[in-house]
Amino acid sequence: MAVVAELSSSSSYTKSTRLHSSQCSISSTHLSYLRRRTFRPVTRPRAATITCSVASDQVQAPIAIQAADPNSKNDCYGVFCLTYDLKAEEETKSWKKTINIAVSGAAGMISNHLLFKLASGEVFGADQPIAMKLLGSERSFEALEGVAMELEDCLFPLLREVKIGINPYEVFQDADWALLIGAKPRGPGMERAGLLDINGQIYAEQGKALNAVASPNVKVIVVGNPCNTNALICLKNAPKIPAKNFHALTRLDENRAKCQLALKAGVFYDKVSNMTIWGNHSTTQVPDFLNARINGLPVKEVIKDQKWLEEGFTEKVQKRGGVLIKKWGRSSAASTAVSIADAIKSLVTPTPEGDWFSTGVYTTGNPYGIAEDLVFSMPCRSNGDGDYELVKDIIFDDYLLQRITKSEAELLAEKRCVAHLTGEGVAFCDLPEDTMLPGEM
Amino acid sequence: MAVVAELSSSSSYTKSTRLHSSQCSISSTHLSYLRRRTFRPVTRPRAATITCSVASDQVQAPIAIQAADPNSKNDCYGVFCLTYDLKAEEETKSWKKTINIAVSGAAGMISNHLLFKLASGEVFGADQPIAMKLLGSERSFEALEGVAMELEDCLFPLLREVKIGINPYEVFQDADWALLIGAKPRGPGMERAGLLDINGQIYAEQGKALNAVASPNVKVIVVGNPCNTNALICLKNAPKIPAKNFHALTRLDENRAKCQLALKAGVFYDKVSNMTIWGNHSTTQVPDFLNARINGLPVKEVIKDQKWLEEGFTEKVQKRGGVLIKKWGRSSAASTAVSIADAIKSLVTPTPEGDWFSTGVYTTGNPYGIAEDLVFSMPCRSNGDGDYELVKDIIFDDYLLQRITKSEAELLAEKRCVAHLTGEGVAFCDLPEDTMLPGEM
Repeated sequence: MAVVAELSSSSSYTKSTRLHSSQCSISSTHLSYLRRRTFRPVTRPRAATITCSVASDQVQAPIAIQAADPNSKNDCYGVFCLTYDLKAEEETKSWKKTINIAVSGAAGMISNHLLFKLASGEVFGADQPIAMKLLGSERSFEALEGVAMELEDCLFPLLREVKIGINPYEVFQDADWALLIGAKPRGPGMERAGLLDINGQIYAEQGKALNAVASPNVKVIVVGNPCNTNALICLKNAPKIPAKNFHALTRLDENRAKCQLALKAGVFYDKVSNMTIWGNHSTTQVPDFLNARINGLPVKEVIKDQKWLEEGFTEKVQKRGGVLIKKWGRSSAASTAVSIADAIKSLVTPTPEGDWFSTGVYTTGNPYGIAEDLVFSMPCRSNGDGDYELVKDIIFDDYLLQRITKSEAELLAEKRCVAHLTGEGVAFCDLPEDTMLPGEM
Repeated sequence: MAVVAELSSSSSYTKSTRLHSSQCSISSTHLSYLRRRTFRPVTRPRAATITCSVASDQVQAPIAIQAADPNSKNDCYGVFCLTYDLKAEEETKSWKKTINIAVSGAAGMISNHLLFKLASGEVFGADQPIAMKLLGSERSFEALEGVAMELEDCLFPLLREVKIGINPYEVFQDADWALLIGAKPRGPGMERAGLLDINGQIYAEQGKALNAVASPNVKVIVVGNPCNTNALICLKNAPKIPAKNFHALTRLDENRAKCQLALKAGVFYDKVSNMTIWGNHSTTQVPDFLNARINGLPVKEVIKDQKWLEEGFTEKVQKRGGVLIKKWGRSSAASTAVSIADAIKSLVTPTPEGDWFSTGVYTTGNPYGIAEDLVFSMPCRSNGDGDYELVKDIIFDDYLLQRITKSEAELLAEKRCVAHLTGEGVAFCDLPEDTMLPGEM
C-alpha cells in the first residue's frame, strides 16, 4: 500500500494528520513556520508553562546566599527555586559543573523510572550535580508537577534544579543531554505511515528547538518510536548539532538478546559479550549471534542449535515486549528506563576492553557498507567522553548480510515516508509491512 | 463507634471478614491453624507457586559449572535458575555473602520502583550480591512473572537469584531483609476497623511465616498501611525474631518534612537535619520542628512564623500525599520507593555525626515515656550494622508532648482493635476518627 502524507495547516501538533494518496502540498519552509507558531504561541504567557511552587512572599528571609537577580531563578520548580545558583562561581569551582538533562515525555511511565535513577547519581556518578529540564504536554502538565513534587520529596543531594514546561524552546535551553521519550501511541485504525508522520512532526520540532537553544554539543537519545527515523528527523532539523550526537535506543533489544543467549546456553548473563543489534528498532532488527560471544567464545561454538539461533533467538528478542505486555498488563517501563541509563553509561564510561555496545547512530562514513544517511543500530565503543567510534573487526556471513539488508530497506522506506520532515521534498510512503514492536510506541 | 471483630473460618485471607458487635469467638490457636491451612494448601503443587521460565530440556549443555543437585535450583525464575549456586564456596569466598531480600506486594507500583533500585546495587552497595524473593498473590501472579522478566532483561550483575511465589512460607525462606509492602486498599464503605483487621490478618500470617522460615535476625520494614499496627501484629506473631528488628516506614514523612522546612526557610533541603517524625504514620503523626535543625540552628531560630510551624507545616507534610494524588492521578510510588531505600541505607551505613533518622520501632525500653509495647516512630541512630539505638538528647515542650500523646492514644486504640491478631484476646475497636493518610494504603 502506498500512502503519501499531506499536512493540513494544523494549529497544534496534537491534531491528527490527514493521510491520503496525493502529493505533499506544503513546502518544508512553510511547515517550519507553522510548527514554530504552534510551539511558540505569542499569546501564552511564560508563567503558564514554567511553574515554581513557592511564591516569593511565602518564603522567609533565607540563610543561604541567593542569586543576585531574583528573576534568574524563576524558571524552576519548588524547592529547586530557592537554593543553588547554577552559574555561581563557587559551584563550578568546588564541584563538577552541573549538567543539564532535558527529558521529553517526562510525565510518562518510562520517565517516572528514569528521572529518579538520574537524580540518584546512579548514571552520571556521585560527584555530578544535575539540573533537570522536563518537557510535558498541556494534557500532562499536572502530572508533571506531581513528578517534580516527588523529586522534591526524595531529597536527592545531586539534583540541583528541576524545571518543567511544555515549550521545547524553553525547556531544552542549554541542555547537555536530551532524552527524547515522548511520542504519540498509535490510535485505533492509524496506519504506520500516520504514526511516522505524527511522531515525526514532534521530533522535527524538537530538533529545531535543540538546534536553537541546546548546548552545541548536546547528546540526544531518541526513545519515542519509531525511534530510528525519529532520530533521523531530529538530526536533520538540527544542523548546528553534530549528526554523530544523535542516538536511537536499541539497548533494551541488546540487553534482551544477551539474556536470551544466556538462558539458552545455561550461563549467567554477564558471560555474554559483543552483542550487536543491527538496524531498525522494529521486528526487522538483527540481533547478531555471529559476532556475539559467550564466555569469550563465538556463540556458535557454545550453542550448536543453528535453527534456534536463526529463528527462535531473534523471535524471542523481538517478541519479548509483547509477552511482557500480556503478563504485566502494560509495557516494560522499568527495564526500558534501565536500558536508557545503560546507554548513557556506555557513553560516559570507557567500554571494557574487547567489548562493545549497540546504539542507533548516523550511518555516514560507516565501514559496513550500510546505506549512508540513515540512523542504524551498529556496534560502538566509547572512551567515556560522550562520544563513540564504530567497531572495525566485525565479520559477516550471507545470513547476517541478508537480514541487515532487510532492515536497511525498511529504514530507507521510512525515510522516504518522512521526506517532508527531513527537508528532502515530497514524502512517499511505501512501507512493506507492519513491523512495529508491540507496546513500544 | 465500637466494633468487635469476629473471624469466620475463612478459606482464604483474601476473603472479606465480617464485622459486628459481638465477641471474638475463635481462639488464636484455632486462628493460627486456619491461617496455616490457608497458606500451605496440601493440594497446591509446588510448581503452581514457584516458576522457572526455562524447562531443563530447552537448555543446552552449560559451560558454567552447575549445582550438583538440579532440584536445588528449582525455586528460581528464568535466567536466575541457571547460573549461581548461592551456597557454593567460591561465591562466599570471593564476594560478600549474597543477601536474601524478600518483598511482599512485589507486583505493585512501589515494588516496581524499589526492586530495580535494590538490584542496581544502589542500596546495599556495588559489592553486595542479592537474591530476591518476591511475594505476590494469585491475582497478581502473572504481573509478578512480568516483573521477574523485566529484572532478567536488565542484566543487573549483582542480582543472583529471583524467586517468585504466593506462599510466604516458601518465599520468605532464609530472608535477611523482609520489605512488606503488600496490603489491601480500603474498599468502598469499609470502616477503618475493617481495614485494620483485613490487613492485620495478612501481617499476622506473614509474621508467622517469617518466624518459621526467615533468617533469625531478619530485618523487617513494614510499608503496607496501617503500617505501625501492621508491624506490631507482625512482630507479635514472630516471637523468635527480636522485636527490635521490626520497622514501620515513616521515612517518606521525614523526607517530606525536611523538604517543607527547606522551602519555608529558603534553603536547599540538605541543610535540614535532625528531623523526627513521632508516632503513627497517619494524620496524627508529629513532624518535630522543636528538635530539627536548619544549617545547624534550631528551626525556630530560622523560621520565626510559629503559627506556620504549628499549623501549616504539619498539614503540609500530612496532606502531601493527597495533593500528589490529585496532580499525578495515582499515589506516590517513586518517592515511597526512594524512602524505603533511604530507610534501609540508614540501617546499613553509619548515621552522620550529630544527625538522626526516623523509623517506627518497638517502644519497649524507650527513654521518652511513650507507652510500652507499641510500634512508634522515634529518632534513631545506627552504626551501620543493621541495628539502631534511640537518640537520647531530645527536648520536649508542652505542644510536642501533647501531640505525641494524641498519636500514642491512636496507636493504643488501634492495638485494642487488633488484639485478636496479637494474641492478646478480645478485640475492641474504638477508633476516635479517620486518620488514614490519603492514597497510602
